[in-house]
Amino acid sequence: MESWRGLSPLFECVPNFSEGRDPQKIAAIEQAVSSVSGALILHRTSDADHNRSVITFAGHAEAVLEAAVRAAAAARDLIDLTLQRGVHPRLGALDVLPFVPLEGASMSDCIELAHRAGERIWREVGVPVYYYQAAALNPARVRLEDVRRSEFEGLREQCLSDPAKAPDVGGPALHPTAGAVIVGARKVLIAYNINLKTSNLLIAKAIAKTIRTSGGGLPELKALGLPLESRGLIQVSMNLTDFEQTPIHAVFNEVERLAALHDVEVEESEIIGLLPRKAIDMAFAHWLKLPSFDGDNVIETRLHRLSNEKPVS
Amino acid sequence: MESWRGLSPLFECVPNFSEGRDPQKIAAIEQAVSSVSGALILHRTSDADHNRSVITFAGHAEAVLEAAVRAAAAARDLIDLTLQRGVHPRLGALDVLPFVPLEGASMSDCIELAHRAGERIWREVGVPVYYYQAAALNPARVRLEDVRRSEFEGLREQCLSDPAKAPDVGGPALHPTAGAVIVGARKVLIAYNINLKTSNLLIAKAIAKTIRTSGGGLPELKALGLPLESRGLIQVSMNLTDFEQTPIHAVFNEVERLAALHDVEVEESEIIGLLPRKAIDMAFAHWLKLPSFDGDNVIETRLHRLSNEKPVS
Repeated sequence: MESWRGLSPLFECVPNFSEGRDPQKIAAIEQAVSSVSGALILHRTSDADHNRSVITFAGHAEAVLEAAVRAAAAARDLIDLTLQRGVHPRLGALDVLPFVPLEGASMSDCIELAHRAGERIWREVGVPVYYYQAAALNPARVRLEDVRRSEFEGLREQCLSDPAKAPDVGGPALHPTAGAVIVGARKVLIAYNINLKTSNLLIAKAIAKTIRTSGGGLPELKALGLPLESRGLIQVSMNLTDFEQTPIHAVFNEVERLAALHDVEVEESEIIGLLPRKAIDMAFAHWLKLPSFDGDNVIETRLHRLSNEKPVS
Repeated sequence: MESWRGLSPLFECVPNFSEGRDPQKIAAIEQAVSSVSGALILHRTSDADHNRSVITFAGHAEAVLEAAVRAAAAARDLIDLTLQRGVHPRLGALDVLPFVPLEGASMSDCIELAHRAGERIWREVGVPVYYYQAAALNPARVRLEDVRRSEFEGLREQCLSDPAKAPDVGGPALHPTAGAVIVGARKVLIAYNINLKTSNLLIAKAIAKTIRTSGGGLPELKALGLPLESRGLIQVSMNLTDFEQTPIHAVFNEVERLAALHDVEVEESEIIGLLPRKAIDMAFAHWLKLPSFDGDNVIETRLHRLSNEKPVS
């Protein structure tokens, strides 16, 4: 198997499982992912109320694909939706399976990978598949919420009588205990918060409403205003769903500008979880007014690239 | 041999050779470096007037050390200082050999490597060694200019009569045709220019004089004001000799501030050659007011680290 360090594209995969309480089951699913050489687990969170876990792993195409299929099989064996309860909506044991392009990967590479995963999950694991977001084959299935609206209990009935509700691959019946997997392709998501030097929550809510896409603000941006009571601060809590279109530095600048209209300063900001290297390089190029900086003249980047051209014994 | 990708520290080495005219000799010296598995050449410049070439290569300690010793041997065989002429001062065929800490390396690691290189160059190549900068054993030899002041022709005489002039390792006589190697340890150097929207060279010169260390400005900063005549701009051309003490964003901010005092705006800036990843991450953390960002939550960085902990087949 080729090393992920090669010039071949890298992918992230962020499976969401309908199990957030039993540590042994969660560990077994994680083990299914990490059993694949070249599939590297970057992050994992579990929530007991949601009864849901999210694993973030990455690698090159073949390793990520294989790990996704093994994870689907483990979830099918370990999670029984007829018994599972939690506050988070779900359609499958492995509920959502998004593929995300990293270094060297395009969205069309990701869509292809999602479709290969969907075919294999039906054929090898026996669980039918719906495609969403960039991988959707049906325009009514682009939004995850639309696919999952009736959840497992509703859709397993609808599938049998209404061909329009049938899965994109397999079925038409859902798997009796594992439901269906919603497989997709999407851009990397950056969770980013900016803390402001005031305790007036109304200001955070007003800035969030102005800046978010749904309020006519910046594209591909979700935002909420939250209190940070123990610190006497407020927070604009955001998700950047396309950092190339709405870069992190543009978000910072705009929140800072809107806060200044209220005579409020930025205290600090924070990145939750992971972000791609490119988001940092874009901000660097912006602030230093570097016309064409792309990270290519970074010593470590050049070393990594050269080491792929010249084998190191 | 261990891969440079391991958790072991990475080093850069920037040998300066007293040959900048004969392409075959320059290629042969470069070949001596690249013959070492794990020593990766990042950059090379040659100057015919200076009659001097600079090779930048990097890797882990053992590969960099081996390549430095082989380069010293090639320079001894190919360059005869009794015949060599150029406008640049020089003491050796391999004239200066600085080691620079990269990812995971400390300055004391670098000093140790410089001293190991010096010992081997004397023992295996037969060329005596002076230590400078952080690797200096003698406080009078910290500055390169002080070590090289009398050049090859002067020092080869002085060494024979004045024990205070003798090399730190080997000698006391210099090598009859290869002189001595000045081996050192220093921080990575960033060459950084900021172009300003005016053709008034006096402004660039005034800003350079104010901002540079020698003018009482920022520490570890060299600066010159230059005209960019074809573009009708001026340039503040700088070397940052310790980007952790005087970061690139601090330099940008200060030049922008000083230019504004002259009612002049920054047009753009440019990084010449290479810069370390850390300089970018420091700027990112500064501008976004991220209290403790260290690049650790970058997807690609985490992938690279994990791939070292879990072998990829």
